[in-house]
Amino acid sequence: MSNIAKGLEGVLFTESKLTFINGAEGILTHLGIPIQEWAEKSTFEELSLALLDAELPTAEELAKFDAELRANRSIPAELVELIENMPRRAHPMQALRTAVSYLGLLDPQSEEVSQEARRAISIRMIAQFSTIIAAIKRAQEGQPIVAPRQDLTHAGNFLYMLNGKEPTAEQARLFDIALILHADHGMNASTFTAIATSSTISDMYSCITSAIGALKGPLHGGANEQVMVMLDEVGSPDKAAEYITDKLDKKEKIMGVGHRVYKYFDPRSRVLRDYAEVVANKEGRSNYYQILETIEKTVVDRIGSKGIYPNVDFYSGTVYSDLGISKEYFTPIFALARISGWCASVIEYSRDNRLLRPDAVYTGLSDQHYTELQDRQ
Amino acid sequence: MSNIAKGLEGVLFTESKLTFINGAEGILTHLGIPIQEWAEKSTFEELSLALLDAELPTAEELAKFDAELRANRSIPAELVELIENMPRRAHPMQALRTAVSYLGLLDPQSEEVSQEARRAISIRMIAQFSTIIAAIKRAQEGQPIVAPRQDLTHAGNFLYMLNGKEPTAEQARLFDIALILHADHGMNASTFTAIATSSTISDMYSCITSAIGALKGPLHGGANEQVMVMLDEVGSPDKAAEYITDKLDKKEKIMGVGHRVYKYFDPRSRVLRDYAEVVANKEGRSNYYQILETIEKTVVDRIGSKGIYPNVDFYSGTVYSDLGISKEYFTPIFALARISGWCASVIEYSRDNRLLRPDAVYTGLSDQHYTELQDRQ
Repeated sequence: MSNIAKGLEGVLFTESKLTFINGAEGILTHLGIPIQEWAEKSTFEELSLALLDAELPTAEELAKFDAELRANRSIPAELVELIENMPRRAHPMQALRTAVSYLGLLDPQSEEVSQEARRAISIRMIAQFSTIIAAIKRAQEGQPIVAPRQDLTHAGNFLYMLNGKEPTAEQARLFDIALILHADHGMNASTFTAIATSSTISDMYSCITSAIGALKGPLHGGANEQVMVMLDEVGSPDKAAEYITDKLDKKEKIMGVGHRVYKYFDPRSRVLRDYAEVVANKEGRSNYYQILETIEKTVVDRIGSKGIYPNVDFYSGTVYSDLGISKEYFTPIFALARISGWCASVIEYSRDNRLLRPDAVYTGLSDQHYTELQDRQ
Repeated sequence: MSNIAKGLEGVLFTESKLTFINGAEGILTHLGIPIQEWAEKSTFEELSLALLDAELPTAEELAKFDAELRANRSIPAELVELIENMPRRAHPMQALRTAVSYLGLLDPQSEEVSQEARRAISIRMIAQFSTIIAAIKRAQEGQPIVAPRQDLTHAGNFLYMLNGKEPTAEQARLFDIALILHADHGMNASTFTAIATSSTISDMYSCITSAIGALKGPLHGGANEQVMVMLDEVGSPDKAAEYITDKLDKKEKIMGVGHRVYKYFDPRSRVLRDYAEVVANKEGRSNYYQILETIEKTVVDRIGSKGIYPNVDFYSGTVYSDLGISKEYFTPIFALARISGWCASVIEYSRDNRLLRPDAVYTGLSDQHYTELQDRQ
């Protein structure tokens, strides 16, 4: 058999200046700056701009970008109507995919593919994603859709639209950190799908619609939802040790643990754990947090030596849950963050575009002829 | 610099039993049977089923499949309404992408990813694509949408819905051949994008929405539209020789000529040329056909030795044009055919799925630290 690169693992197909990952040592940087520093000192707005332009912005550039985001939060009335009329029980990611595709129909610039146009559309999409996702959640829960406010931060305004009330500064900042941690992660499957779509010189809305579809799959965006299912399955902290030992003994998959790239602690999981610690020290250890502590300890002790450690999904679900977000909306919230990485990656790849067309090894029949239907077996 | 496989060209990432292409000799087979035989002896319905199941169907299986296609031609009233309310000047492929995404919201089976569910959804999508595309074209032209008929073939019913009148048997058969020629073509960019989406175990609607977005790009689905633009630019047959000589002298790109895979005649272009000959012998040589004849002769004489020959897009536009279809709808019609290849490829890849996650070479900064905004240049 020929040499098949299954899953394209290890295949290098382009260059990128955006994100560096060293899975063996648990290092993740954007523009060379460790993710821990981005989380501690920056904002989702700043990281988004830095990714889009592949450089750290000046104060003036960031102020302009932030103003543009704020000014572009509203979505067209036709789109609000579409979201309100969607079937209530639709999968939120199917709803998001459809809403973004429809937004493309309404954007007079949607067919433009110059780098300037791609950037302008990206800014609008980053801004509007939060409004769309909040609107989908509210419509699905039978609540009135909340219009965006311009005076709040990106993260703060999203929580406001989602819950219909202004978050505390602490909640907004925590959510901002979660967005920062998920904004970009190199050539993950959804970013790659966005690039594959873009490689035919298709429009931004097509690229992002594709990325949403790829993120939707449980092998990609759905993991933190599965962690919450696991936590509910465990039920209470005193049952965690037995539950996880049993799973490990049976060599069953544990959600939120292990990663295709990281063979050490996912650095994003450390940021979230540190946050969870702060909350726990202040407000007491929640059931969820206690269960996670026990599982993490057991996993690291027993299979850490095999390169299997908790990843970002291990803690993010509990953070969202603490913010009052139900697990059906975890993947759309992943998209809310990753939109910046998707747009930035498409823009970067477009600078030196090359149509993506790998090959398959043909293993089928040869030298066949069409036989008339009546002559078949 | 590391070894980068730009465009993933020549990279083998999976096996396939569906389609074999030998670009050097201009050979294309499905299930080992040459495309010429499929075009001459089969139907789009039969080829679609053969691709979906990766084997030639029996007469009984084909009859069942054909009945299922006919029974599933209708689309939900909500979708008809969505199409009618879309902005008139939207790009037809943006409209198609949105309509298919919305169809996913309405399909109660859309979240199922078993092979049985994928196959059932594929059959419905193949059937409904024709109704959706015809509806989009009619809505955009301000004409009433035509409901499908069950008594016509897939190709015949599509032309009926598109034009509001029943096609002749000859027209329906010609369109059937065009669908056969475009049904599948190995790992092209849109099929690959569908597979990339599917590789996260996402749903069929996400896969096909992604594929539509990728096909939309001018490097992929838009080429036959560009051939028509060229023919209109030439204007009349007596100007063709000068036009093409001038282009070749200036080394400008000629639309519908050359192919990433084929370095000889694209066998699909031969089938369409033969058909065009038959029509020309019967009804006289149309202007378009005469221009194509001259261009083909000049191109083959001057650059054929470099492996540059007319491809399928070179003739398909004139065929569609002869059927009264305007060039804005050529790419949706490409999708109408390729839906079978997309679905079949996703189903085949899903049998032994592996998440697609290639890598990029990091060429950005390292060892950076976050600097406060006021400290930046």
